[in-house]
Amino acid sequence: MAIMPVTDSMFLLAESREHPMHVGGLQLFELPDGAGPDYVSELHRELVRAADVRPLFRRRPMNPVSSLGQLAWTNDDDLDLEYHVRLSALPRPGRVRELLELTSRLHGSLLDRHRPLWEYTLIEGLERNRFATYSKVHHALLDGVSALRLLQTSLSEDPNERDMRPIWSPRVRTGVSAGRVDGDDGGSPLAGLRAAANVVRDLAGLAPTAVKVINDAFREQSSMLAFKAPKSMFNVPITGARRFAAQDWPLDRIRAVRKAVGGGSTVNDVMLAMCSGALRRYLIELDALPDKPLVAAIPMSLRADSTGGDMSGNAVGIILCNLATDVDDPAARLAEIMTSMRKGKQVYHGMSQLQITALSAIPMVPLALATIPGAVRITPPAFNVLISNVPGPRNPLYWNGARMTGVYPLSIPYEGQALNITVTSYAGDLEFGLTGCRRSVPHLQRLLTHLDDALAELEKALIG
Amino acid sequence: MAIMPVTDSMFLLAESREHPMHVGGLQLFELPDGAGPDYVSELHRELVRAADVRPLFRRRPMNPVSSLGQLAWTNDDDLDLEYHVRLSALPRPGRVRELLELTSRLHGSLLDRHRPLWEYTLIEGLERNRFATYSKVHHALLDGVSALRLLQTSLSEDPNERDMRPIWSPRVRTGVSAGRVDGDDGGSPLAGLRAAANVVRDLAGLAPTAVKVINDAFREQSSMLAFKAPKSMFNVPITGARRFAAQDWPLDRIRAVRKAVGGGSTVNDVMLAMCSGALRRYLIELDALPDKPLVAAIPMSLRADSTGGDMSGNAVGIILCNLATDVDDPAARLAEIMTSMRKGKQVYHGMSQLQITALSAIPMVPLALATIPGAVRITPPAFNVLISNVPGPRNPLYWNGARMTGVYPLSIPYEGQALNITVTSYAGDLEFGLTGCRRSVPHLQRLLTHLDDALAELEKALIG
Repeated sequence: MAIMPVTDSMFLLAESREHPMHVGGLQLFELPDGAGPDYVSELHRELVRAADVRPLFRRRPMNPVSSLGQLAWTNDDDLDLEYHVRLSALPRPGRVRELLELTSRLHGSLLDRHRPLWEYTLIEGLERNRFATYSKVHHALLDGVSALRLLQTSLSEDPNERDMRPIWSPRVRTGVSAGRVDGDDGGSPLAGLRAAANVVRDLAGLAPTAVKVINDAFREQSSMLAFKAPKSMFNVPITGARRFAAQDWPLDRIRAVRKAVGGGSTVNDVMLAMCSGALRRYLIELDALPDKPLVAAIPMSLRADSTGGDMSGNAVGIILCNLATDVDDPAARLAEIMTSMRKGKQVYHGMSQLQITALSAIPMVPLALATIPGAVRITPPAFNVLISNVPGPRNPLYWNGARMTGVYPLSIPYEGQALNITVTSYAGDLEFGLTGCRRSVPHLQRLLTHLDDALAELEKALIG
Repeated sequence: MAIMPVTDSMFLLAESREHPMHVGGLQLFELPDGAGPDYVSELHRELVRAADVRPLFRRRPMNPVSSLGQLAWTNDDDLDLEYHVRLSALPRPGRVRELLELTSRLHGSLLDRHRPLWEYTLIEGLERNRFATYSKVHHALLDGVSALRLLQTSLSEDPNERDMRPIWSPRVRTGVSAGRVDGDDGGSPLAGLRAAANVVRDLAGLAPTAVKVINDAFREQSSMLAFKAPKSMFNVPITGARRFAAQDWPLDRIRAVRKAVGGGSTVNDVMLAMCSGALRRYLIELDALPDKPLVAAIPMSLRADSTGGDMSGNAVGIILCNLATDVDDPAARLAEIMTSMRKGKQVYHGMSQLQITALSAIPMVPLALATIPGAVRITPPAFNVLISNVPGPRNPLYWNGARMTGVYPLSIPYEGQALNITVTSYAGDLEFGLTGCRRSVPHLQRLLTHLDDALAELEKALIG
């Protein structure tokens, strides 16, 4: 038995049918040369046969039924690997559309607390000679960035390497240059979420007066926006069903836009402009575009950033960014986003790492508090949508000779935050994963078309 | 808005992650002549396109999050048919084994209370030119027998009939001779469960002294067994994951055994002897066979039964049957079961329908009370396993030309009742559906082999 830190247990205590608290990853692979029609089911049989599972993937809540029992971890001595490692298939014609439909469904169901809090599904029947894997792990076990990293560490840059182990194996290789092992996520742009959780851990025991202090400090930070985040269709109570959409775009296209606009712009700025353009189109189509611009919360690594400076170590800040969704012209929209991001980073200038962490945690507090039943809610919404950008591996990765062609993160919509956009990079592409509440964010798939249009619009306006 | 009867809401209030309260049905179909490879996906597209849905399949709990809101039904005005009607596929090689694996998983996840409480999944990729459907409906909406009946009413005895509607359509045909529409389940052998629920409705407001009266009355009925149901591995707390197994055997084989044994024996007796033999083998294999014989609770229609008699109307009784699992000889075991069933029926002899209903409800009270959180629990277990036999249609049924080759019921394991066996008949076969808690009833599939062996054993002993 191990006492569970509050940062783990809060995600268990807050979980409900409406608020599953797990993250996911969708990976696409090419079938290796010479793979027969039973390649995937044979792979599944092999994976289920291997009985060695690392401790992280063996632990489960001590007493899953009572709240108190959720405050301690125990080991599952009777691990039923066939339960965790599943084999599924896509209905014909096996397009990405069918894959996303299945993934949405898998991401919308709760993990079984009587067992270690993870599932891994091999998916066969994907057209163009591919297969996919969907991994699901509870936030109490691993946060999204650590989970994504862990997935990558089990892959190899060498297409000829064989006998590679799955992520739950204690003998998994960790030979990827960009990869880090779980726990060591200090430098990740999303570590801010962990930091926020740590702040909330200390907050949880505080009196309401302390929450007022946090409120005031938050108002100070958001004052740089000169406006409040408007109410939007994304800032509503949510239900448990999920819709997931994913697509990638070549980094070269995004870099070309960045180059054309110049002025210290980043790939992240162009990514945000794509999101902004897509959200604007989506909201106009549903006649739900607020007059005021949407505000995004963006966890960012501030280490080697253009703010330059006196910061040492792995400083991570949460930036509140004006997405300029009220602006029609794509170039003007991108310019406003760049300005807002620059101002947001400047707030952190000259601060110590500890100060940055504390300040960054503030806009995340409502989100984190929302995971504690009955906790204080801060209104109006501090931001409208959470957009994260997690750098991924630059080179193509392989799993026992099968080339990974794409990897897409699935995240957690929270109460009042019905849409999450998480982006990662991989082998020359920028890969978008959009996770939404199926009821509050209808026709989520349309955002993919809108993202595509938004990029084309930027290219037309800036490159010609 | 419609106030929900307690018999509906108790299943919503009692539901938890460990105790999903839905029933299911698995149907297997032959692809009709000339069906192309996209037959099932085209069927799915058609079903999703049809927007007319009968009121029963439109209603959902008024306020799914608070307990109070679960006491009223409301209509879903924004029904998302694509959510309810799903298309899935089996991984290769698409045997019944893969089908049961998928069905187990589908049956183990909770329905979304923000939507009407049903799901319908078309399953393609089943070998030997077949497809399957899995239907899932909350017990608060329909009980198992009504759900099974409703499924059948949407089918036709005419292989040439086309333009048939799905069960949720208000224009569904009800042209099957054996079929009855939902609600009208008075004559069903499982109506006793409804009756028990009605008794519990009245019980729910009673003082503990009243529960004592029920206890005493129950002891009186079970005294005819001359022993108490032993503690067994099935009478434990359960988890939410399910395992489902299903198989059919020709009624002719069962009738031949019945004929050989003579003495007023019924198909139901032989079915129970199969269950008994299978449970005995299963428990011996796990070194968990109690010294005392297992007791089964069997809801039975007493109307046209051998007890003869003075009963009018649709009387339904719950029989507590000694399964004689302590007896090695299959013929002796069957004889003991027959004796126990005869004695059980005699208890009801000369009673009014109301008395029968009240008395029958008694052994179900612990089960029904177990669905009310914090309600009194009566120990030791009144019985070890619930076995139901629901008569089905005699003639082959078709759905738009696709012949149904099998239909298997999926039921609800309760706290302390980790295994449920429900049997139905269809077109010359007896079809077994076994639903168990995945953790408490390991290797559930082995019961199918044991059932097969148990039948062979009876044939050998009695026919030679």
